[in-house]
Amino acid sequence: MAQEKKIPYKIYLEESEMPKAWYNVRADMKNKPAPLLNPGTHQPMTAEELGGVFCDELVQQELDNENAYIEIPQEIRDFYKMYRPAPLVRAYCLEEKLGTPAKIYYKFEGNNTSGSHKLNSAIAQAYYAKKQGLKGVTTETGAGQWGTALSMACSYLDLDCKVYMVKVSYEQKPFRREVMRVYGASVTPSPSMETEIGRKINAEHPGTTGSLGCAISEAVEVSVKNPGYRYVLGSVLNQVLLHQSIIGLETKAALDKYDIKPDIIIGCAGGGSNLGGLISPFMGEKLRGEADYRIIAVEPASCPSFTRGVYAYDFADTGMVCPLAKMYTLGSDFIPSANHAGGLRYHGMSPILSQLYDDGLMEAVSVEQTKVFEAAEQFARVEGILPAPESSHAIRVAIDEALKCKETGEEKTIVFGLTGTGYFDMVAYEKFHDGKMDDYIPTDEELAEYRAKLPKID
Amino acid sequence: MAQEKKIPYKIYLEESEMPKAWYNVRADMKNKPAPLLNPGTHQPMTAEELGGVFCDELVQQELDNENAYIEIPQEIRDFYKMYRPAPLVRAYCLEEKLGTPAKIYYKFEGNNTSGSHKLNSAIAQAYYAKKQGLKGVTTETGAGQWGTALSMACSYLDLDCKVYMVKVSYEQKPFRREVMRVYGASVTPSPSMETEIGRKINAEHPGTTGSLGCAISEAVEVSVKNPGYRYVLGSVLNQVLLHQSIIGLETKAALDKYDIKPDIIIGCAGGGSNLGGLISPFMGEKLRGEADYRIIAVEPASCPSFTRGVYAYDFADTGMVCPLAKMYTLGSDFIPSANHAGGLRYHGMSPILSQLYDDGLMEAVSVEQTKVFEAAEQFARVEGILPAPESSHAIRVAIDEALKCKETGEEKTIVFGLTGTGYFDMVAYEKFHDGKMDDYIPTDEELAEYRAKLPKID
Repeated sequence: MAQEKKIPYKIYLEESEMPKAWYNVRADMKNKPAPLLNPGTHQPMTAEELGGVFCDELVQQELDNENAYIEIPQEIRDFYKMYRPAPLVRAYCLEEKLGTPAKIYYKFEGNNTSGSHKLNSAIAQAYYAKKQGLKGVTTETGAGQWGTALSMACSYLDLDCKVYMVKVSYEQKPFRREVMRVYGASVTPSPSMETEIGRKINAEHPGTTGSLGCAISEAVEVSVKNPGYRYVLGSVLNQVLLHQSIIGLETKAALDKYDIKPDIIIGCAGGGSNLGGLISPFMGEKLRGEADYRIIAVEPASCPSFTRGVYAYDFADTGMVCPLAKMYTLGSDFIPSANHAGGLRYHGMSPILSQLYDDGLMEAVSVEQTKVFEAAEQFARVEGILPAPESSHAIRVAIDEALKCKETGEEKTIVFGLTGTGYFDMVAYEKFHDGKMDDYIPTDEELAEYRAKLPKID
Repeated sequence: MAQEKKIPYKIYLEESEMPKAWYNVRADMKNKPAPLLNPGTHQPMTAEELGGVFCDELVQQELDNENAYIEIPQEIRDFYKMYRPAPLVRAYCLEEKLGTPAKIYYKFEGNNTSGSHKLNSAIAQAYYAKKQGLKGVTTETGAGQWGTALSMACSYLDLDCKVYMVKVSYEQKPFRREVMRVYGASVTPSPSMETEIGRKINAEHPGTTGSLGCAISEAVEVSVKNPGYRYVLGSVLNQVLLHQSIIGLETKAALDKYDIKPDIIIGCAGGGSNLGGLISPFMGEKLRGEADYRIIAVEPASCPSFTRGVYAYDFADTGMVCPLAKMYTLGSDFIPSANHAGGLRYHGMSPILSQLYDDGLMEAVSVEQTKVFEAAEQFARVEGILPAPESSHAIRVAIDEALKCKETGEEKTIVFGLTGTGYFDMVAYEKFHDGKMDDYIPTDEELAEYRAKLPKID
């Protein structure tokens, strides 16, 4: 056995050790993720069709199931250097507090103004749009992390950025909106009266506070109707998981530097951008038979696409203008009960992760939000970082696994993704403290009703 | 000339390179800062007298003008490892945007949940209180950074923490209050009806929204009346500048690692905790004749203690229960016009910095807040970090100095302190965007009126 090096509280890679290529886990998957389908013809989307929505280089990345490594352009690597490498932190204080023999590490992605890992893909998508000579991009945002990240990237590259923000978030989170304004983005509450689909939804559901699916439809419509604009998305897509592989690659490099081999890897999962990025190089080893890891996706009990959804083709948006994706889904009309992890409220899941889950290569658990906030507060008090509600789902399960180790005496190594900070989520923490947070979980009947509305695809 | 090493975007020290002792600049000062005086007798405060307010080890540090280095206890160094070393960042993107030949570096202290450098002293003060077997500590907070930092430190050490928060901030910044609650602190709007001085102030000024000086009086009263409690303060005091020297020591170590010698060092100054910490080792070299630097304090034009105050003994608080301090002051009754840099709204200035300024060892400039927010936004868009309004005062002057270099063609090296992030200051950014921010500057007549009320000390 190699002599154990003393592990510092935080492992930072040197700039020279930062990854120079993204890793594309699809290259190592025996069962490739199902292709996106044209919503009209139900035929696989061609590069040409996708090119009307996404910019060209991103279409290539979306369709590329073969190349394991894709070089990160120098300009993006320079931008990454502004806020990366993200530290891999040894949670010494949490371990001590829990009295566990487990060794806990977390990859902290919150050290940038967007407050999350979203910036990793935002800069890539904005870069390719700029390179193609486009004027700007459109997108949707729920909780606001993705919108903020995209605003930052566009501001840096001098691209126009139009954000459709779910109306309820727009009103409840004026500060998020204001951060986007600092970065020069235009932010419109959705559904708006600016788009056809927005006017339609407003007419059909007067007073609606909006949803992610609806904001996606508006953003896509605007990109298609405005020459020089393309639509960009912060999760679910293959290209996003590719860019987010930087999380896992850095994590693996940091672990390798100290000869640490994780037993369990845990990440929260909404659309899959964080989890897919974090696990990708580890999953690659697993797919190639070089190593084995327990990989756990954590989702809210109020929006349980992995644990209670079905694996089927579904619409990505409410307006049904987007391609169909085969994924674990609750149905595109599903709107979760009020929960405070805005980034985990999507009805579907990344097609890549859906295929890996279906193949039994990873596990999934769902947790109730009061339990999540208990873990968040416990973590904040000993580790100093106030976590985002989304990230706290992973903390909950990491703590649970560490407590199991305490019972069994096993010295397992647990790695989880701490995707971001909760500075803009204090209303949620307040509700938690005041005992006003509920744990509504959809009934089987409710889920069956949404499931019945799934499109029929042969 | 040594071969120039390629400077990375961010210089992180290794854990082993982190300072093991704080540096006490007083040891190298020929003219020592004036002692605190008993407000009743006008005699220098003795250790015994100070011991009624501060815990014993901090009293020693407060009075120690001789020892240049004071060891940082291992427990505090372990806590520092949770969020330090703070990066020294090369502002490549800002330099490019400005088109300046100047080389700009900033020491970023915002990578912790308190959002600022305040945690450096909070953990030290809480540690010594715990070591002395105390039950808890009391303090005041304005903008909330200090209160949050102290809450975090106390939560970590399992100490009770009572925070008196200036009422207007308590009401305008509910999220800051909520973060303190996450860390288990009790937060009371000041002036409250819980203290004698609070009741008195409320009776004399019905409907008052409070001030820092008033919250200090309440916190001191509560500490004195409750056995097992002591008062702690986040700025002004010698002990605070001592703890904050960690900022400057790390900055200097990072610069030395790459053979970089700064020409200009810039910091924002409210009570002096950041500036005093940042400059201390550089000022030490200057005092010992080993090097020379231009050192610039930046303060708000609305609260110009250095640039328009007088160097005199004054009360530290409204209730006049605290010792008298000799400092640059505007008068303890001075309340600045609404400006959004809550951390720079104090009427006085650190006695150490006051003496250094009076001795001509540093400069000071004042800047108007709309100019500050222009700089903040420019910085955010290219460097990615959304700065606190306080920190943005230093950004303003760093940019101005870099633009002077552009005119002259000089390749000066500029280092400034980026004390924290502005996530809880979005109301201020909103006012700036909406053109609703004013730049009121006190008139000479107003300042003379406050000055006339200064205590007469022989």
